[in-house]
Amino acid sequence: MERKYWNPEMETLATGEQRRLERERLLKQLEYVAATSQMYKKKWFEAGSDVRKVKGAEDLAALPFTTKAELRESQERQPPFGDFLACKPESISRVHRTSGATGRFIYTALTKADLDLTHDCGARSFWSAGLRPHHRVVHCLNYQLWMGGVTDHFNLETTGATVFPFGVGNSRQLVRVIQEAGINAISSTPSYPKYLEQVVRDELGIEPRDLGLTLGLFGGEPGLDNPVYRQRIEDAWGMKAQNANYGVSDVLCNFAAVCEDNYQLHFLGTGALLFQLIDPESGEDLPMEEGVMGEMVLTHLAKEAQPLVRYRTSDLLEILGVGPCACGRTGPRFKVIGRADNMLHVKGINVFPNGIARVLESMVPDVTGEFQIVLDHPSPYTHLDITVEYGKKIKLEEMEGLKGRVTSRLKEELNFKASITLVPP
Amino acid sequence: MERKYWNPEMETLATGEQRRLERERLLKQLEYVAATSQMYKKKWFEAGSDVRKVKGAEDLAALPFTTKAELRESQERQPPFGDFLACKPESISRVHRTSGATGRFIYTALTKADLDLTHDCGARSFWSAGLRPHHRVVHCLNYQLWMGGVTDHFNLETTGATVFPFGVGNSRQLVRVIQEAGINAISSTPSYPKYLEQVVRDELGIEPRDLGLTLGLFGGEPGLDNPVYRQRIEDAWGMKAQNANYGVSDVLCNFAAVCEDNYQLHFLGTGALLFQLIDPESGEDLPMEEGVMGEMVLTHLAKEAQPLVRYRTSDLLEILGVGPCACGRTGPRFKVIGRADNMLHVKGINVFPNGIARVLESMVPDVTGEFQIVLDHPSPYTHLDITVEYGKKIKLEEMEGLKGRVTSRLKEELNFKASITLVPP
Repeated sequence: MERKYWNPEMETLATGEQRRLERERLLKQLEYVAATSQMYKKKWFEAGSDVRKVKGAEDLAALPFTTKAELRESQERQPPFGDFLACKPESISRVHRTSGATGRFIYTALTKADLDLTHDCGARSFWSAGLRPHHRVVHCLNYQLWMGGVTDHFNLETTGATVFPFGVGNSRQLVRVIQEAGINAISSTPSYPKYLEQVVRDELGIEPRDLGLTLGLFGGEPGLDNPVYRQRIEDAWGMKAQNANYGVSDVLCNFAAVCEDNYQLHFLGTGALLFQLIDPESGEDLPMEEGVMGEMVLTHLAKEAQPLVRYRTSDLLEILGVGPCACGRTGPRFKVIGRADNMLHVKGINVFPNGIARVLESMVPDVTGEFQIVLDHPSPYTHLDITVEYGKKIKLEEMEGLKGRVTSRLKEELNFKASITLVPP
Repeated sequence: MERKYWNPEMETLATGEQRRLERERLLKQLEYVAATSQMYKKKWFEAGSDVRKVKGAEDLAALPFTTKAELRESQERQPPFGDFLACKPESISRVHRTSGATGRFIYTALTKADLDLTHDCGARSFWSAGLRPHHRVVHCLNYQLWMGGVTDHFNLETTGATVFPFGVGNSRQLVRVIQEAGINAISSTPSYPKYLEQVVRDELGIEPRDLGLTLGLFGGEPGLDNPVYRQRIEDAWGMKAQNANYGVSDVLCNFAAVCEDNYQLHFLGTGALLFQLIDPESGEDLPMEEGVMGEMVLTHLAKEAQPLVRYRTSDLLEILGVGPCACGRTGPRFKVIGRADNMLHVKGINVFPNGIARVLESMVPDVTGEFQIVLDHPSPYTHLDITVEYGKKIKLEEMEGLKGRVTSRLKEELNFKASITLVPP
């Protein structure tokens, strides 16, 4: 009989048991960090925090947060892995480097044990999204340095699926491999199929759905939360488009994915991560309850190389459900609503650019989906000036009506006032 | 105490024990192949071979050879993995594709057990060449489809070394990573450092040896057998240049490497492969003895996905030693002298283009090392017409002397008569 979960013990652990496991691992991990991580020793000493007083997740708020900027500083202070490296350098098996999109690169080091746990959590996620040993999956994320390449290759392979290393670029070659090798699943960013569609249709004269893909495993960028975009991919390719690869590269490659019947991201990092939410303004802990929105804060529970404690991910989430999902998995379910570092305050309301994107994308073809927020002073704002591209087929006499509709849709969905300027596509 | 071998049991197995192990695994493997491989069932039936009569390596000659062309035909007949696939398709974990340099691509499939054995043999090889857990190695082979990328990444990682996935291209970025991350070893083709040298010296104004690399692990193409080229790399980079990655992509990723004191390729595939030599003309088995030259024929001893029996690799080897090496490893030692498919017969002597290349490269700077063999009819030949580029600094009056020297060096080293035409560089 086919297994329903990759790691049933962790994925379906009852809440009480989860707490017990977390507490046990947390105390062990904090002891390890206090003994081995120069950065945390110093940080906790300077903050006057007594880590021995932490007896469980509820006491963690007594310890200061860790930020990406600190990791960067640590690696500048002690290159290449930083003084938050807690193991001997010769114990490191694999090293990835972030893209450096938000500043200096960060080198992420993993020991063999770190890799085993990483691959297990990744396999839980891909399995949850529907990947099975009978699938032949082509992995189209960049293998150069970035975690998405080699480490996700192994996450995929761990499930028992047949994995073809492909990487990025060379789309014509990719189509040939899909056809020749009877590939039925693809792993990539959610924006890639849209690009590939053009190559397949316009250059090769093939309908995407004729390639025979049945499963798309996407991650690495937002997009799939938008049901319109998802539907578009599913229609063009005839495949299920699954949000299958959510992770935080400084912390863990992939620890959340949707399941086969429910389009909410399931937290699948049980045993590896303590998952908490805070108010991004006050820094106070928020309860893990349906409807709560806050910034995700993660603490490693069993990390050897670069353990992080109270790491602010900058990812803002909304909790969609707690307790067991219909699929039986017990981790909290969430969606990503934005990044703390691009949150805008409009008359007491938190607004995220990708929230605006989602609303506008749902109005295609009346608008193209492209827009610009015009910010002439720092937060907070009383309203937002937004320049929006109208659709190709909009006539002059329809402009005023469209403007009104965009304004009211934004008000309805995101609860803020926008001044819309329409511009040609 | 640091281990001396990666897998001492296999690497130092006494010859008698090797034979026993080979016999035991061979009989089990042949039984498996006869039961599961359509291609071999048919092939053996048509050849009238009774596989049950094979009781050891010495009887294998009763079975027909397998060639690359057959693998290709098999995959055309039954895409993508061919009817030599002996396991269920859903048991395949990883798939590579050859570059197709000599015709249609071949898809190489590996099960989890195949991968474990592959990584173990690869680790034996890299370890033999000197890689240790304290090394930080950047892996610069192509990760797109080809075995050299992902599978060699794992071969490297298996040794416990710290591995950075890099791939090919983007040399400036590579130099930056080497510097930032304190990398001290590189895995690439032997021609890459020569190219990288230019980038480092001419564009970045850095002396290659100042980058701090101490170990080069090379493979995938010939070149390092030439002591002149090796010395050049070692001088420029201040690193040991090791021939560390010899394999046959249809058979096994990496199963031979030099050791730390002896520049001969050690066969390290004990338990995975039966290694035999044949006369490439007559097809007859040759003894595994020092000085014997012949084509390498390989038979898998424990392969689940695509087991091969009596596979002609086309690689022509010279056995340099049998019995234990000074390092303690017991596999036969060899060098690759050419490819059966580009062997030329000159008055009863077998001549290989890369043998000519080796002689000419040892004469740089009097010649550039570039040459062309002019073939106006098929083998055999009474002599070879070779066009050779003379070095930049050669004067007109030195031409005749140079021509004579090239002719006599070729005669001395390779025992054939050449008619040399010198052309400007």
